[in-house]
Amino acid sequence: MSLENVTKAVPARLSDDGTAVVCIDQTLLPNETVYLTLSSAEDLWEAIYMLRVRGAPTIGVFAAYAIYVLSLQTKQAAFDAFYVEFKRNKDYLDSSRPTAVNLKKQLDRMERCVLAHREEPVEKILPALKQEALDIHREELDMLAAVSEYGLTLVKDGDGILTHCNAGPLAMSPGLGAILLGKERGYEFHCWVDETRPLLQGARLTSYELTLAGVDCTLICDNMASIVMKEGKVNACFVGCDRVAANGDTANKIGTSGVAILAKHYGIPFYVFCPSSTIDFNCKTGADIRIEQRKPEEIKTKFYEKPMALDSVKCYNPAFDVTDGELITAIVTEKGICRAPYTESLKALFGGDEK
Amino acid sequence: MSLENVTKAVPARLSDDGTAVVCIDQTLLPNETVYLTLSSAEDLWEAIYMLRVRGAPTIGVFAAYAIYVLSLQTKQAAFDAFYVEFKRNKDYLDSSRPTAVNLKKQLDRMERCVLAHREEPVEKILPALKQEALDIHREELDMLAAVSEYGLTLVKDGDGILTHCNAGPLAMSPGLGAILLGKERGYEFHCWVDETRPLLQGARLTSYELTLAGVDCTLICDNMASIVMKEGKVNACFVGCDRVAANGDTANKIGTSGVAILAKHYGIPFYVFCPSSTIDFNCKTGADIRIEQRKPEEIKTKFYEKPMALDSVKCYNPAFDVTDGELITAIVTEKGICRAPYTESLKALFGGDEK
Repeated sequence: MSLENVTKAVPARLSDDGTAVVCIDQTLLPNETVYLTLSSAEDLWEAIYMLRVRGAPTIGVFAAYAIYVLSLQTKQAAFDAFYVEFKRNKDYLDSSRPTAVNLKKQLDRMERCVLAHREEPVEKILPALKQEALDIHREELDMLAAVSEYGLTLVKDGDGILTHCNAGPLAMSPGLGAILLGKERGYEFHCWVDETRPLLQGARLTSYELTLAGVDCTLICDNMASIVMKEGKVNACFVGCDRVAANGDTANKIGTSGVAILAKHYGIPFYVFCPSSTIDFNCKTGADIRIEQRKPEEIKTKFYEKPMALDSVKCYNPAFDVTDGELITAIVTEKGICRAPYTESLKALFGGDEK
Repeated sequence: MSLENVTKAVPARLSDDGTAVVCIDQTLLPNETVYLTLSSAEDLWEAIYMLRVRGAPTIGVFAAYAIYVLSLQTKQAAFDAFYVEFKRNKDYLDSSRPTAVNLKKQLDRMERCVLAHREEPVEKILPALKQEALDIHREELDMLAAVSEYGLTLVKDGDGILTHCNAGPLAMSPGLGAILLGKERGYEFHCWVDETRPLLQGARLTSYELTLAGVDCTLICDNMASIVMKEGKVNACFVGCDRVAANGDTANKIGTSGVAILAKHYGIPFYVFCPSSTIDFNCKTGADIRIEQRKPEEIKTKFYEKPMALDSVKCYNPAFDVTDGELITAIVTEKGICRAPYTESLKALFGGDEK
């Protein structure tokens, strides 16, 4: 399953002349497809921080190319001086986002590559770093295909699948892989796509990728997941992950734990799609995972200056839902506080006939 | 507890000359405070449909004034002709929104008032209708104060309270009443305000009302409710309702059932604040409640041309959360599908040491 089957968008690669990193600016999708060619440390850092490049595996691949490109710019011929610069660049890139393990893991792998060549002249180290970055990229794509095959065994033709955030080809994440692979093989799924506030990766990216792939999908607000599950429209939940602890605790886009709780309540399986590069055995549990805090403006100020999704994306937009009485601790009225069973307690207070 | 303690905004009243309904356009808050003076059937219908006037009790009060104002315009001197016009106006106003019971209930009450005066000349009916509308308004405000008193007994000074949608004075709904009453009595609460997509009544109205009242509050995206509950920040959930069935099933803004499920999961009490005018004994269960479907554009197209909340509103904005392994049915990897206990199953597949 190649990215090209889904979208022309390539989330991260080396520039043709090999001196810069090229990435699609994911913050402009689906309205504009703009490729950035980046080579300064500041621009590379900003692209990750601002989510122009996002998705745990994509961030790792981008970072590997980035540290290689920055290494090319070194003036240092001696290893020790070269290594000092490498470390400074590495620490700077690693500071762009704290939660996804792939960023640090792939930068560490690039550092191990440098140290493995410490006895050689710097000009020999650079091609080794380039090859390491290309290997990392290839391994992520191979993993994506393999995870997708396993994922496809969990669902059947005609299933409804709820997604949260974007875990598709743009992220080099396999959350959508099984759906796209199934589509290639003639399965018809219907996807319920959480828009995923505040930055709307579901609306902007997932509904875009699924639509381009010809997968039937419906965009919903995050708070509509409960009603679509209750109405029996969802057979499985598919999500990606940014870091998985050794005990299986999983960090993923804000709201993922809420989807999991709803799925459990409604008896719907909840699947995390996880390439091994996202597992962090140094984290015993989720309590060890640092959660990134971002700016209030992402929630509070205007965000949508352009349509949030392709025009062809359907929306399911109930204005209300029904909360079963069994979920309500009490109903407080001007005559007192009612508790379950409400059929009795409300009637006792109000007589049961309309005024 | 008067509206004026909280905001100068008056959600619905008769114009000074008594020939029109005046309401604040809630769709423009918090950025602009614009009062509409409406007297045509089309404008009155549109104000409800477009949520310029919203909140179940406010809709009921507005509709009572509206049917009175339309009755003033009748040219019919004979009761039967007058009643035909009244019914046509009533059915038209009732068609503006289907879910909130208050709309139909208060229009029915106005109709009963007409029928009670059927033996009198039309000019005698009109003052009776005016008084009935004023009585409905007064009763809603008295109910609001009473419900708030009961609500205050459910929380204690210092509690964290999560709100969904807007159930405050603008809605003439008591969901925020206990919080505002407590504030008057020196309680310090901290409110976690769901923004409430798609139309952002939480961001635009609840954070606005709480801020004007001096209540400490933090705006979150709907999908952040799970993490704030998990972090122990929430002691109770307070929501309003649009229709409560005889068995306690409650229709309220989309997403309310999800908040209730999360609250149950985390062992947090979930309270529905419900004036009796919102209880519909004609609905045996929630299955009898018709759910309004609204336009895709509310989700999909640009919405925020202005800031969504007052500049002084704080935001809590984690970019990720942690889903406990026990909530995850399986973790799918390129080497196979892991199930709980993940400490064993992940280690079995990947050896547990970093590559």
